[in-house]
Formats: sequence, structure tokens, C-alpha cells
Amino acid sequence: MKAVTLDQVPSVPMTMEGAANVSKQVPLGKEDGAPNFSFRVFTIAPGGHTPYHAHASEHLNYVIAGQGALVNEAGEQRPIKAGDFALVLPNEKHQYRNASAIEDFKMICAVPGAYE
Amino acid sequence: MKAVTLDQVPSVPMTMEGAANVSKQVPLGKEDGAPNFSFRVFTIAPGGHTPYHAHASEHLNYVIAGQGALVNEAGEQRPIKAGDFALVLPNEKHQYRNASAIEDFKMICAVPGAYE
Repeated sequence: MKAVTLDQVPSVPMTMEGAANVSKQVPLGKEDGAPNFSFRVFTIAPGGHTPYHAHASEHLNYVIAGQGALVNEAGEQRPIKAGDFALVLPNEKHQYRNASAIEDFKMICAVPGAYE
Repeated sequence: MKAVTLDQVPSVPMTMEGAANVSKQVPLGKEDGAPNFSFRVFTIAPGGHTPYHAHASEHLNYVIAGQGALVNEAGEQRPIKAGDFALVLPNEKHQYRNASAIEDFKMICAVPGAYE
């Protein structure tokens, strides 16, 4: 059993190509003994975005704070805000963007442990 | 791709033995095509609690709102509040309790799809 707050979890810049102004934390994951999947938290600063890409792993997301956009395969931006849940299916092209000029966009991004 | 807010998701009372004043929602799960795991949300009203039990599935939790306690195998209550993350390992005895007399305790409880 583990309980933790985000300010206890190290934050590292996301260096993946196509990412801008994004940092990553892993509050619950393989190191804690989670056998199947992990909770990552991404913080996107104003002006920032995750890569516009697709991959074999699904995402289950929950928006902790802020206002953003979830870009779909057609390039359309769907508004998404604190309190919203989102599912990105395997191999579905997607991107998260911060839509605010002043506030961070912060979300849980749950993935199978192999993709932590 | 799916995006949804909790007020769009049906809520059903949790009827499992040992649960009191708990309701369940599944904002992201098998019906949406999530291949590996599901996000359930449990709302525990004041005075309520989940069963004090163990099971083969792990939980990955995020507390959306409220103040509660996470009871461990020794029966000890650890305070847990909005913004906290918690991991309950497979076969680890546990219980969530609402610690407030006036406010709901609400958390994401992620499990493998078979345990949705």
C-alpha cells in the first residue's frame, strides 16, 4: 500500500520529439509493485503540447487542473477541462494541448506498465 | 476517442456486502473499448465506507474530492484527501472511509478490465 501527493514525486521534462513544455511524474507505477498499469501525470505549461502521435498503448486520462484541447485523428480540437475523463484507443492519433495562456494543464495518463 | 464528465455517467449504488453509502460510476471502461483496464469512480457519502476486504486485483486510486481514511491490513487508518494517489496491491486488505461529516469523498479506482 502506498499513498503519495504529487509534490512528493520527482518531475522530469518530457524530451520526446514533438513535445513542448511538458513535464512527467509517475506517482504510482512499476517501482511501487503495480502489476498491470501505471499512473503518470503530465503537466503542460502555457503554450505547450504533447506529441501529435499514435502508439500501440491506450491512454486513460483524467484532467486534474486547467483547460486544454484533445486533438483527434482528423486534427480537430475538442475542449477538455479539469474534471473530464478521456480515453485514447490503441493506434489512435492524438495530442493534448494547453489552451490557457496563464494556467498549467495537468492530467493523469494511465498506461499498461510496459509503456510507463 | 471518448471524453466525458462525471455528470454524464450513470451512478449506481454499490451493493457489495460491507459497503455503506457508496455509489459507483464507470466513466471509462470495457464498453468504450478500453483494452486493458477501467476507470471507476466511487462516491462515499458522509458516514460511508467501502468493504474491508482483499481481492486478486490491484487498485490504483486518485482522490478527486473530500477527506477520508485508507485502512491497511493492520486496521490502521491513514488520512487521505483530495489530490492524493494510492496503490492497493493484489490481496492486500483495505478499506476506504469518508472522514467528513458533511462532504462526499470521491475517488478514481482503476482496475484491470476483468474486475470492472
